[in-house]
Amino acid sequence: MKSSSNATYQSIVAYDGTEFEGFQRQRAGHRTVQGVLEKALRDVGWEGRALEAAGRTDSGVHAQGQVIAFQLAWDHSSEDLTSALNANLPPDVAVRSSLRARAGFHPRFDARSRRYRYSIFIDELRDPLRERYAWRLSEQPDLDLMHSAAGLFVGEHDFAAFGRPPHERSRTVRKVYTCRWITSGGRLELEIEANAFLYHMVRHVTAAIIDVGLGFEQLSGLKAMLRDPSRRREGRLAPAAGLCLVAVSYGDRDEQASADKN
Amino acid sequence: MKSSSNATYQSIVAYDGTEFEGFQRQRAGHRTVQGVLEKALRDVGWEGRALEAAGRTDSGVHAQGQVIAFQLAWDHSSEDLTSALNANLPPDVAVRSSLRARAGFHPRFDARSRRYRYSIFIDELRDPLRERYAWRLSEQPDLDLMHSAAGLFVGEHDFAAFGRPPHERSRTVRKVYTCRWITSGGRLELEIEANAFLYHMVRHVTAAIIDVGLGFEQLSGLKAMLRDPSRRREGRLAPAAGLCLVAVSYGDRDEQASADKN
Repeated sequence: MKSSSNATYQSIVAYDGTEFEGFQRQRAGHRTVQGVLEKALRDVGWEGRALEAAGRTDSGVHAQGQVIAFQLAWDHSSEDLTSALNANLPPDVAVRSSLRARAGFHPRFDARSRRYRYSIFIDELRDPLRERYAWRLSEQPDLDLMHSAAGLFVGEHDFAAFGRPPHERSRTVRKVYTCRWITSGGRLELEIEANAFLYHMVRHVTAAIIDVGLGFEQLSGLKAMLRDPSRRREGRLAPAAGLCLVAVSYGDRDEQASADKN
Repeated sequence: MKSSSNATYQSIVAYDGTEFEGFQRQRAGHRTVQGVLEKALRDVGWEGRALEAAGRTDSGVHAQGQVIAFQLAWDHSSEDLTSALNANLPPDVAVRSSLRARAGFHPRFDARSRRYRYSIFIDELRDPLRERYAWRLSEQPDLDLMHSAAGLFVGEHDFAAFGRPPHERSRTVRKVYTCRWITSGGRLELEIEANAFLYHMVRHVTAAIIDVGLGFEQLSGLKAMLRDPSRRREGRLAPAAGLCLVAVSYGDRDEQASADKN
């Protein structure tokens, strides 16, 4: 199936998720990031069956640093590959960089951590120029409480109360390295990095922290959910538009990736 | 045509211009901001023929502070009017505030100044998360030269080289109060305020300044165009996506607007 000159490549991909039904390819008629990327790959000679990706972002979720991998016979430079793919991609998806990866590199299984950003802004009224990439809160939350709430999630915890695992019986323990609010030009951003995330975990955690900031939930309630994961969090998810996959880290694997030859 | 209880209202309107063929209503089948606003107005009982607006922004241009005026018989508060209009507007348009204006208020003729912002960012590669609201330059321009170039436009000048007047034989002299670059979270923004603008003037001025920053034009060339307005600027316009109508000022007329009764 693969020609002898195939090599493994990895690319960093950015997209505006608004007009996509998520990352993962579905049946025909659904516009997905994977579908659009695979079309662009076929335009440059890719003959694979499916690309691999670090994270299957939900419908409406954005990415600055999604990582994909694929096998390709390519005679030119990695920069030329990036340009060729971008020439075949729509305006809401772009390849930001490409490089040769070691044989067998898998963007999901090999990832050491993922970093997401959840953006909010506070405004009593709708604001069409900000709502594409951030969640609007109509009331001012208590930022001190939100800083305290974010701190509770740092460390290794059973996050079963805050999301579903990939398979029904798989582990729900995850290690959160960073969970903190930063301010950036009128926006408030929750930066959260973990070894991996459960399904909907960032949007549950964000909503739970904001519930504390708005007085709908107590810090003690979050602590209880982290202590006793059978207490599933009820209540709405933070909307997809505020969420962005910022970066995926591969630890020291990154360094060897471009040196490896297939 | 107008019922005796009609009063004049003014509203501040924000929109994401991407999916609109400009502000001004056209024939059927063209989605315009005016068309969408007039539909929302009719939903709250408006029976007018056309609303008035401060500026007819081009296709793809955004606004934070467009000002519109209309006659309406409305028995509730101005805040209720804002809410009622927003309930009838699509996600890419929102009314930010409404108030009773003095009878005869005209958002274009009465405006003392308009302020626009043109946003750029520098990146060798496409970036889907920034290009909706900013122009991407693939090379780093010389910012010192761009600051100097911006300064040339401040003051009263004949801007005929940088845009067309509303009617073929009308005046092309405009008074620019502010023209300067400010940095904001990785973006570079040209803030430009004038008593009024010629058609395409902001996009011509921005492109001319960036041409200087990239070495395609000299400061002396801009000076010559300002001295001799018959030297029409050639060269591309800065793209619509980077432009936003930030605010319209009415000087001391603002204060009396809400006190006036019709």
